[in-house]
Amino acid sequence: MTSYIIDKLYDRVEKRGVVCVGLDTALDYVPEHIKNGRTPGEAIFEFNKQIIDSTYDVAACFKVQIAYYEALGIEGLVAYKNTLDYLREKDEIIIADIKRGDIAATAKMYAKAHFEGDFEADFITLSPYMGMDSIEPYLPYLEKGNKGVFSLVRTSNPGAEDIEYLDTTENKKVFEIVADKITEMAKNCVGECGYTAIGGVIGCTHVEEGKKIRANYNNMFFLIPGYGAQGGTAEDVALYLNNGNGGVVNSSRGILLAYKKANKPEEFALCAREEAIKMRDAIRKAVKEA
Amino acid sequence: MTSYIIDKLYDRVEKRGVVCVGLDTALDYVPEHIKNGRTPGEAIFEFNKQIIDSTYDVAACFKVQIAYYEALGIEGLVAYKNTLDYLREKDEIIIADIKRGDIAATAKMYAKAHFEGDFEADFITLSPYMGMDSIEPYLPYLEKGNKGVFSLVRTSNPGAEDIEYLDTTENKKVFEIVADKITEMAKNCVGECGYTAIGGVIGCTHVEEGKKIRANYNNMFFLIPGYGAQGGTAEDVALYLNNGNGGVVNSSRGILLAYKKANKPEEFALCAREEAIKMRDAIRKAVKEA
Repeated sequence: MTSYIIDKLYDRVEKRGVVCVGLDTALDYVPEHIKNGRTPGEAIFEFNKQIIDSTYDVAACFKVQIAYYEALGIEGLVAYKNTLDYLREKDEIIIADIKRGDIAATAKMYAKAHFEGDFEADFITLSPYMGMDSIEPYLPYLEKGNKGVFSLVRTSNPGAEDIEYLDTTENKKVFEIVADKITEMAKNCVGECGYTAIGGVIGCTHVEEGKKIRANYNNMFFLIPGYGAQGGTAEDVALYLNNGNGGVVNSSRGILLAYKKANKPEEFALCAREEAIKMRDAIRKAVKEA
Repeated sequence: MTSYIIDKLYDRVEKRGVVCVGLDTALDYVPEHIKNGRTPGEAIFEFNKQIIDSTYDVAACFKVQIAYYEALGIEGLVAYKNTLDYLREKDEIIIADIKRGDIAATAKMYAKAHFEGDFEADFITLSPYMGMDSIEPYLPYLEKGNKGVFSLVRTSNPGAEDIEYLDTTENKKVFEIVADKITEMAKNCVGECGYTAIGGVIGCTHVEEGKKIRANYNNMFFLIPGYGAQGGTAEDVALYLNNGNGGVVNSSRGILLAYKKANKPEEFALCAREEAIKMRDAIRKAVKEA
């Protein structure tokens, strides 16, 4: 049986808990003492490095949101590359949050871009709007075992109603059809842990829906955004997990900016660690009580 | 009345025809004599420059597919930036084919990334899967008049059936709901030409559908991929236009690799020009006869 990257992620969750640290690092998140004497790209990389060093043993993985780096142009993308390199050197699992969605030759180029070379990550996020041929070009990387994807399925932003929640004449919502199709597609890349190399981005919403989604897509690993800053609670999140695994829960600003609440910019990395631990433990507790 | 970037694009189509030259430049498209003595990034930029110089007066605009550049990492993105800079210096209209799709702060970062700074373009393509709040953050740039977007609406790949063509219980297909919503959203950015700053990516399919889509979304400007290499004919395309305007028709490999059919690598730029003219004239003829 192939050992998949999803097995490594599963193990990390077992050992370290479900927290995914979101490195959505805007320049204005970086404290002054880190910015001083550094270019914007250097400052962001230094901030990320300290956050990584301070949280890796209490986090399952890191999600790097490429938009924040693209916004700084070439310099930002050098900081992005440096951050990925640093995570890889430390053997940390990288989810590149890129939400690319294109087909055929273009999708193959995106696969090359984000599974090889300067921007190599372990997982990438994808958008399925154009259909399953916007996911399928990534399969060769997945079937080799060392790469994975998370397809957008159902998010928790207000706009999710616009397309994802539309009722179709197949008596399913659009997102349920997407989830069914990626489940079918993932049949040839099931890891030893029982989850597949094609995960789903599933935003955290109300209780009944969480239970239903978890039950319906039981071998889909979930990337769950929206904790903290965006409103999801530990109790909500627990329902999207199977005994505390089967998903990772992302927090970006909640962790990166924990120092602002404490008003301790000099200790931003320690504040981030404390916040990650608090989050991990709150979710563990909610899982036990669920 | 504000003059919008869409008015400029409309004027270009009036003067130069509907051809959009797709700069999906893979390194192996570049002839040996251009590669010699150049790094991959330099070779791609030199190839693009010669294609641009040779086609700009017979093309409405240029679409640059970022995936091909991302695949070469930082070096590729420098070639991407250089290509955009070169187009901007020549006052050519740039469509950045990036198909980004994200919400809130992240979408704002993508807007900053691709409407300002190193990667500034005139238009960008977007993916609407997460809903209208993945389009809305770009509106401030659109309403100022100088930027535009094309949202994915209905593509012509086989996978289009998977989501875009799903029948909803509102008696419309998913792509029709998307088209309705972006039409509604675009009401405050209608140009003097009658088209709005939120265009739609509409792949070229069979005749009846083309007529219906054109009639239903009459103030939506279309970005039409799939000409040539992907199978669309001039007659198909004509039905998506209003008297030869209201859309641009992209060809990438058909134009970039025209030299291969002629077996004239030394004359790749001239072959590209001849192919663009042939395409422009074939569509003009089909429009007259439609």
